[in-house]
Amino acid sequence: MPLSVAVLGATGYAGCELARLLLRHPKVKPPLLLAREGETPSERLDELYPALRGDGPLPLTPFSWAGMKRRGVRLLFLATPHELSRRLAPEALDRGLRVVDLSGAWRLKDAANRAVYAFPPDGAKGARWDAEAVYGLPELHRGAIAGARLVANPGCYATSVILGLAPLARAGLIDRLAGVVCDSKSGASGAGKKPTQATHFVEVADNLSAYSVFGHRHTGEILEQTGLGADELTFTPHLLPIPRGILSTLHVRLEEPATPERVGKVYRAAYAGGGFVRLCAWGTLPQLRHSVGTNYCDVGFALSPSGRRLVAVSCLDNLLKGAAGQAVQNMNVMYGWDEGEGLR
Amino acid sequence: MPLSVAVLGATGYAGCELARLLLRHPKVKPPLLLAREGETPSERLDELYPALRGDGPLPLTPFSWAGMKRRGVRLLFLATPHELSRRLAPEALDRGLRVVDLSGAWRLKDAANRAVYAFPPDGAKGARWDAEAVYGLPELHRGAIAGARLVANPGCYATSVILGLAPLARAGLIDRLAGVVCDSKSGASGAGKKPTQATHFVEVADNLSAYSVFGHRHTGEILEQTGLGADELTFTPHLLPIPRGILSTLHVRLEEPATPERVGKVYRAAYAGGGFVRLCAWGTLPQLRHSVGTNYCDVGFALSPSGRRLVAVSCLDNLLKGAAGQAVQNMNVMYGWDEGEGLR
Amino acid sequence: MPLSVAVLGATGYAGCELARLLLRHPKVKPPLLLAREGETPSERLDELYPALRGDGPLPLTPFSWAGMKRRGVRLLFLATPHELSRRLAPEALDRGLRVVDLSGAWRLKDAANRAVYAFPPDGAKGARWDAEAVYGLPELHRGAIAGARLVANPGCYATSVILGLAPLARAGLIDRLAGVVCDSKSGASGAGKKPTQATHFVEVADNLSAYSVFGHRHTGEILEQTGLGADELTFTPHLLPIPRGILSTLHVRLEEPATPERVGKVYRAAYAGGGFVRLCAWGTLPQLRHSVGTNYCDVGFALSPSGRRLVAVSCLDNLLKGAAGQAVQNMNVMYGWDEGEGLR
Amino acid sequence: MPLSVAVLGATGYAGCELARLLLRHPKVKPPLLLAREGETPSERLDELYPALRGDGPLPLTPFSWAGMKRRGVRLLFLATPHELSRRLAPEALDRGLRVVDLSGAWRLKDAANRAVYAFPPDGAKGARWDAEAVYGLPELHRGAIAGARLVANPGCYATSVILGLAPLARAGLIDRLAGVVCDSKSGASGAGKKPTQATHFVEVADNLSAYSVFGHRHTGEILEQTGLGADELTFTPHLLPIPRGILSTLHVRLEEPATPERVGKVYRAAYAGGGFVRLCAWGTLPQLRHSVGTNYCDVGFALSPSGRRLVAVSCLDNLLKGAAGQAVQNMNVMYGWDEGEGLR
Repeated sequence: MPLSVAVLGATGYAGCELARLLLRHPKVKPPLLLAREGETPSERLDELYPALRGDGPLPLTPFSWAGMKRRGVRLLFLATPHELSRRLAPEALDRGLRVVDLSGAWRLKDAANRAVYAFPPDGAKGARWDAEAVYGLPELHRGAIAGARLVANPGCYATSVILGLAPLARAGLIDRLAGVVCDSKSGASGAGKKPTQATHFVEVADNLSAYSVFGHRHTGEILEQTGLGADELTFTPHLLPIPRGILSTLHVRLEEPATPERVGKVYRAAYAGGGFVRLCAWGTLPQLRHSVGTNYCDVGFALSPSGRRLVAVSCLDNLLKGAAGQAVQNMNVMYGWDEGEGLR
Repeated sequence: MPLSVAVLGATGYAGCELARLLLRHPKVKPPLLLAREGETPSERLDELYPALRGDGPLPLTPFSWAGMKRRGVRLLFLATPHELSRRLAPEALDRGLRVVDLSGAWRLKDAANRAVYAFPPDGAKGARWDAEAVYGLPELHRGAIAGARLVANPGCYATSVILGLAPLARAGLIDRLAGVVCDSKSGASGAGKKPTQATHFVEVADNLSAYSVFGHRHTGEILEQTGLGADELTFTPHLLPIPRGILSTLHVRLEEPATPERVGKVYRAAYAGGGFVRLCAWGTLPQLRHSVGTNYCDVGFALSPSGRRLVAVSCLDNLLKGAAGQAVQNMNVMYGWDEGEGLR
Repeated sequence: MPLSVAVLGATGYAGCELARLLLRHPKVKPPLLLAREGETPSERLDELYPALRGDGPLPLTPFSWAGMKRRGVRLLFLATPHELSRRLAPEALDRGLRVVDLSGAWRLKDAANRAVYAFPPDGAKGARWDAEAVYGLPELHRGAIAGARLVANPGCYATSVILGLAPLARAGLIDRLAGVVCDSKSGASGAGKKPTQATHFVEVADNLSAYSVFGHRHTGEILEQTGLGADELTFTPHLLPIPRGILSTLHVRLEEPATPERVGKVYRAAYAGGGFVRLCAWGTLPQLRHSVGTNYCDVGFALSPSGRRLVAVSCLDNLLKGAAGQAVQNMNVMYGWDEGEGLR
Repeated sequence: MPLSVAVLGATGYAGCELARLLLRHPKVKPPLLLAREGETPSERLDELYPALRGDGPLPLTPFSWAGMKRRGVRLLFLATPHELSRRLAPEALDRGLRVVDLSGAWRLKDAANRAVYAFPPDGAKGARWDAEAVYGLPELHRGAIAGARLVANPGCYATSVILGLAPLARAGLIDRLAGVVCDSKSGASGAGKKPTQATHFVEVADNLSAYSVFGHRHTGEILEQTGLGADELTFTPHLLPIPRGILSTLHVRLEEPATPERVGKVYRAAYAGGGFVRLCAWGTLPQLRHSVGTNYCDVGFALSPSGRRLVAVSCLDNLLKGAAGQAVQNMNVMYGWDEGEGLR
């Protein structure tokens, strides 16, 4: 029997993408689309996103726990601001739902890293779920996700950086004293749907800019997942004049000179267990647009003549592998289905 | 009396921009536009670049030393492939012309760095001009340029990187052991006018890709001008889906913790002598599109909380400060005019 | 048992999209990908189009009738230049294959319209297949397509214009004396994959241009399918600075004043039988990007206050409903499958 | 002695462009930049538009008639919303200033056309200035502009359409019964600087859409300047995914068959008196990007084989010839200067 799921926040870019994927997922009923406060429940997703027309009307339903229960909802996707996710997830879990949260509310184990979100204190309940939440990067945490009740879907930037760095970090290849430089570039859908001066077409087009230098919220996720220390990582995000996609260029100094064979073996071993990382053949690097529209994260690398410096490039679609696609991948793992169900 | 100049290679993107600037320059006669081999001299620049229509017909003239002499040409701009510049510049100099060369032919002092261009051996003549050529970055070498006969106009990427790094390097702020990471992004006009699969609109649009990693020709210029060692610099160029502009993100580990005041003072001192660097106020970073269409290189920086890591961002228009505009700036310095003549 | 099909020309933009759709089609075996002359059969489609990686290797096979027979191929897709399609289709048909041809070779019934292609004379054989070929626009010719051996897949521009105009023309609403103006705009993938000066990123970006005014090859298809006379139609194509998608703005003077209800009824009746036209609610018009990535053609209209002038807007993805998607839709009709199989 | 001018509304896209042009104009003092209500006078234009840095600080000054008088301001540019221009222009004129208004407040002579702006009634004063205002298209009204006190700078779309149509209309070539179709496409800066959902980068990029069909405010200007009747003109604007530029495709049925020579002569005669129209050679059509960054309007045309249908294409930069550049051109005419002063 297909699973009954609900999505809160389907009107945002990531939430809409999630609704689209769930509508086509063979093991899931058409999702219950819940309206956030301030959203007229009479709105229809197919009118907000005419690309979805043709699947019949997709009305938003007022948010209610009773309504979810009536529909037999078992899994709740939260595509909501982190403050709201922080408040709603524990209540959903208490009511017996499983939760995949797309915000930053539950990704961080270290309170110091979590401070950047400035959540109001939520005591033992918060601490319990901080401890129980599983970081939803299936390529690294498949086993834990399978049994999780609360999955914290990773940040888009963080996914691209961690998938490129973690294998090197775990294999001890990185010269941590020299520091790692992650220069990331994201399309404008990463900034969300709300119009601002910074996302006005005329400001973004033909432009490139760095932002949140030394202060981006995804930094903590990268630190926790790679084990790097705070002063060993420089993460520099940029806004690209394209709608979708992230490319991260990862600059690493190696502990000792390496060969392409050695590094390739490390990456292949890390991702031998399945998932959505595509490794590039030696001599090639991924291009952003080949991963856009897919759930893949493409990873390739180059080595300096001395073998001491490595540049890895990692590409993904920020709304798919960086958000909605990864959420579906996590659901697939949580329910023991083929990890790629509904994603290829 | 206005100066008589000639341009060889005005049909390329940089050459055309140069012709446009020279046509509006108050101290220069309308430039003699010389046709390269294979170009029909009957072609007209205003037909190749209809944006130039309205200035009257701009015919190309067959290349000839006699023709230049007849016109009283004193300064020759070479917007030609480096092999051709390598061959033509010495001949022009022998004939008493001054030369501003926009290619990579004469930029490098160190033969090891020059090897990347694989010039055929040109013996004592080549060596003489290699020694005499001045690297045409007026913000660093104004005095030498003023007296130079052969000015090697810098590479576009190199200009953006060197203007961001050189002040820090000269002030001894850089922890060279940790290495410097220059992550640069350029619009597609940097790839030249010749159509290739790589510059097809469909391949570039909505895309981003790294290329020439650990092997870009501008690396040597950066090393020579900053004094960094080959294994201390990682220069990673990317192709941006925009027509014009370069943004370089420069990641530096500092020898010791620094304050914004200290670093700001270093930059301001470096560029106090004039030129076309605009420094950003502390707390702001330059955006690419604000320098496009101008001859400015905009530079800003941020510091990590520890004061040990610095990210500088440098932006310019690859066809202006990165090529034609800088060539005109060099001319202005060579003839003792206001450095900004014809450029504001 | 799944159908065995072959694709000749999978290395072009439309052909690759076709291969991608067929690889995911539940009623079709992985397609035989045939190499055109000059293409190394050792090439792999997943290397040419890294977006396809993850489906396993997709090697090209040398073209051979015997090879197709061995594989049990029943349907051949030709994504080839029109001269080649003109030559190959009859041979394939003689050998008992069914053919969907994506070129202009078999779309036109009127020899005068066909003259624009300047085919070498091919006598009775050509004439036979000209007569038998069915214009593959399922929304208009579903019945004939079902029984066809040779389906001529429509042009991308033609599809967008005909789906917007044909219902009005058939209902006799159009004032033909006043003339119909079709102002169409296409993304750059419509110009094909071969790099030319006209498709260089720097030439297309931030630009718009009209081309082939009064001379575009799709004009004949529009005339034949709408019944308009040659001097009653002005079709003006433009090149848009986007990778994919066509928007056609259709300006019609009506025989007599009409109401939105009347016109809406005409459109709804025309497309009541299924297919991939999505009609917009009165008061809204389609936007290009909502049809890109889908097989839908979105159509909406507005009326002047007098009710005498109508503007219809029609949008589609030139590589899907304008080419590969429509080819799959035609296959679905030819084999009696759900028309949307593999397309939603 | 240079002229003293003021600009109200320099913080918008057109106003900033105007400020930039005036700063470089040899016959004008650095303009007084007046802050609109709600704008902090402490803002600086060079901070809002960092492209202007390098010209020194450009502070905004609180609006005051006394302040203008003190500075000896003679000419006031209004880059303000039409309601505000409607209110301020008469007061400025009463105080002896000359005014160039960039809004739609004073462009229309026919009250029925003006109704679209829904101005509050302003009685005899409004009527007086409606009558005295001169439509500021120098190519058509040079003489009247020279003596005008109030110049109504034309709309951007209207300029592109009128410059392409007026010569044909005045020569009586147009078959008015068949109707004229003007299909216009504008870059996103035409929608203004205020961020809205419709101008969000993700909504505009890779997209195209028609809007204000049968209802755009510039329609009245086109009717008045070409003499066409309301039901003889269809003007259909579209939003292009580019920052700047308008291309209008003008579809005309001719009264009788015409030759290229005849039509070319009509255009050349119309623009023989100077101004900023560049006519394309027969066989070529203008492309949008060649006029962007210039004050030119480029016009070309094609004829159907029958000579009965004409397509003219007209291109301009909506912020220059479509707004700020034309305002400077009008100033040049008003003060008897070279019409291109400060514009080439």
